[in-house]
Amino acid sequence: MSLHQSVLAGDRLALARLLTEIENDTPLGRNTLNSLFAHTGKAHLIGVTGAPGTGKSSLVNQLALYYRKPPNAAAPRRVAIVAVDPTSPFTGGAVLGDRIRMRELSGDAGVFIRSMATRGSLGGLAAATAGVVQALDAAGFEVIFIETVGSGQAEVEIAKLAHSTLVVDVPGLGDDVQAIKAGILEIADVLVLNKADRPGVEAAERALLGMLKLGHPTKRLIHHGQLMEDKLADVELAGLAEWVPPIRRTVATEGKGIPELAEAIQGHKLHLEKTGNWQRRDRARLQTELEDLLRSQLVAQWRRQVSEQAYQTVLDELLQRKLSPRQAVDALLNGRTAR
Amino acid sequence: MSLHQSVLAGDRLALARLLTEIENDTPLGRNTLNSLFAHTGKAHLIGVTGAPGTGKSSLVNQLALYYRKPPNAAAPRRVAIVAVDPTSPFTGGAVLGDRIRMRELSGDAGVFIRSMATRGSLGGLAAATAGVVQALDAAGFEVIFIETVGSGQAEVEIAKLAHSTLVVDVPGLGDDVQAIKAGILEIADVLVLNKADRPGVEAAERALLGMLKLGHPTKRLIHHGQLMEDKLADVELAGLAEWVPPIRRTVATEGKGIPELAEAIQGHKLHLEKTGNWQRRDRARLQTELEDLLRSQLVAQWRRQVSEQAYQTVLDELLQRKLSPRQAVDALLNGRTAR
Repeated sequence: MSLHQSVLAGDRLALARLLTEIENDTPLGRNTLNSLFAHTGKAHLIGVTGAPGTGKSSLVNQLALYYRKPPNAAAPRRVAIVAVDPTSPFTGGAVLGDRIRMRELSGDAGVFIRSMATRGSLGGLAAATAGVVQALDAAGFEVIFIETVGSGQAEVEIAKLAHSTLVVDVPGLGDDVQAIKAGILEIADVLVLNKADRPGVEAAERALLGMLKLGHPTKRLIHHGQLMEDKLADVELAGLAEWVPPIRRTVATEGKGIPELAEAIQGHKLHLEKTGNWQRRDRARLQTELEDLLRSQLVAQWRRQVSEQAYQTVLDELLQRKLSPRQAVDALLNGRTAR
Repeated sequence: MSLHQSVLAGDRLALARLLTEIENDTPLGRNTLNSLFAHTGKAHLIGVTGAPGTGKSSLVNQLALYYRKPPNAAAPRRVAIVAVDPTSPFTGGAVLGDRIRMRELSGDAGVFIRSMATRGSLGGLAAATAGVVQALDAAGFEVIFIETVGSGQAEVEIAKLAHSTLVVDVPGLGDDVQAIKAGILEIADVLVLNKADRPGVEAAERALLGMLKLGHPTKRLIHHGQLMEDKLADVELAGLAEWVPPIRRTVATEGKGIPELAEAIQGHKLHLEKTGNWQRRDRARLQTELEDLLRSQLVAQWRRQVSEQAYQTVLDELLQRKLSPRQAVDALLNGRTAR
């Protein structure tokens, strides 16, 4: 049986092997991904980001558990967790490797957990993560969490892979911090205030509401103002117009607020489907992936045509200020200088 | 007189016009930049980043004033300030436009201040900022500050344009915040603890030291451990080996700590020169600029060759999962699918 067939048949070892091949960008990984791609596009991709220490892993564990044992005799959903660590000299790669996933998840065949870390380029990690998510999607996992270790540049890039993005915050951070996080808030579809049993939860929620007000034009705020202030964020109502990220309080370690959070996530999914934004996000994601691959292929093709010596000569002339950057590009692409 | 000649002759109006041409990416801007490029490479480029509210503008103003009126009868240096605002829906573009620069700077012919903001692409802003900095360098400004409005992804990209990067922090932020900022600390050459008259300055400095320890391998820490702990960070000593970012306390609004900060910046410059890292950073910066231009030119060239219809057909097949992203790239570049 080919790797392709084994993965589709639900062979976990084959899937694990495929993910390694994808991470290493091998021909087998590429080819299998090519042939599996027709089976993708069904999973709900959920990005989870936020500062270290906000309890993202516990939150994802609890959500996974919830999807495995949903209330009201609903069918359990197959869940994959991709924990991505864009290693930096400051965080190290061990953070994800060391941590303990819940016992209740570890023996469950309907759950697949994969940690990804790299010391290589960010572009490489983003490409590998996209491939890993596609493989898990093809393998039939219905909900795929893409969880990042922090909330920096790399994490935001990776969060863009998702349909729905959760941004996790905790009480007790000052106003200055809220400002720092403005960039992360921009990508939030659902805001989670975890560790909500801590003091300062009211102030933290007010701060998040303040940031949301800054970020959403007045028109929409007037429409949704009541909603936001009352924290109802009725997803049905919101679905009729622009999506205003609801705020949900949780205490992940005790499983508190998880059903309400799952409901908000489901609300966002329904909103995406109803407004056609599901297709739009899918399209945007695939187009970005296409253009990134195209760009690197074009550069690789061009690099094969030009001699290393010619490139170094032009680079040296640039460093000596004999050519400007644009003239250097002209020289490399057209074999002439505009000077 | 041509724009080129006027700028070299010190005509401020001509310089302002050139910067606008560069921002708008006009042929005149490109050509003038090409011919002025031979006059660049002399300025000390200093990036200044940090969360909003840390007082970056006041700090840059005070440093500019210090360079204009240096102690011990040293010669004043010509200073340019490029204030960059990668506009986001949360920060808005008005932050930089509204603020008041010091009266002492505004009438000084040896000081040039330029604000840059955009609603366009980040790549475009980075390219325009590089061009503006080159023009100011050619015009004879000896110290050029590249000050960003915040500390997000865009700001880090722009900070890479500098020889020396200051990361500005303030007391009173918790441990969680320090963790958020790990990504910014990675790019710091000098750490500034501004508003150092506030309570919590000791704790903030300890937190920064802790982050530095995480970020610098044990070997270096043993070598410099004493230095870091004693906060001497003797730049001469540090210059002999790896640079460990010194921490400097300031109260910018009162001008406190500015001479010591200027000394640390000068120490970093000397370190760069002594270790050959000045040339290395210069080389890396120009190579990055070259490769970014090359990449966008290659994509633009290719786009002219391929019909919009052919591109859309392949994109549609990708969205329908008939082609994988790699197969789509193959189809576009080689006119065939690997399937």
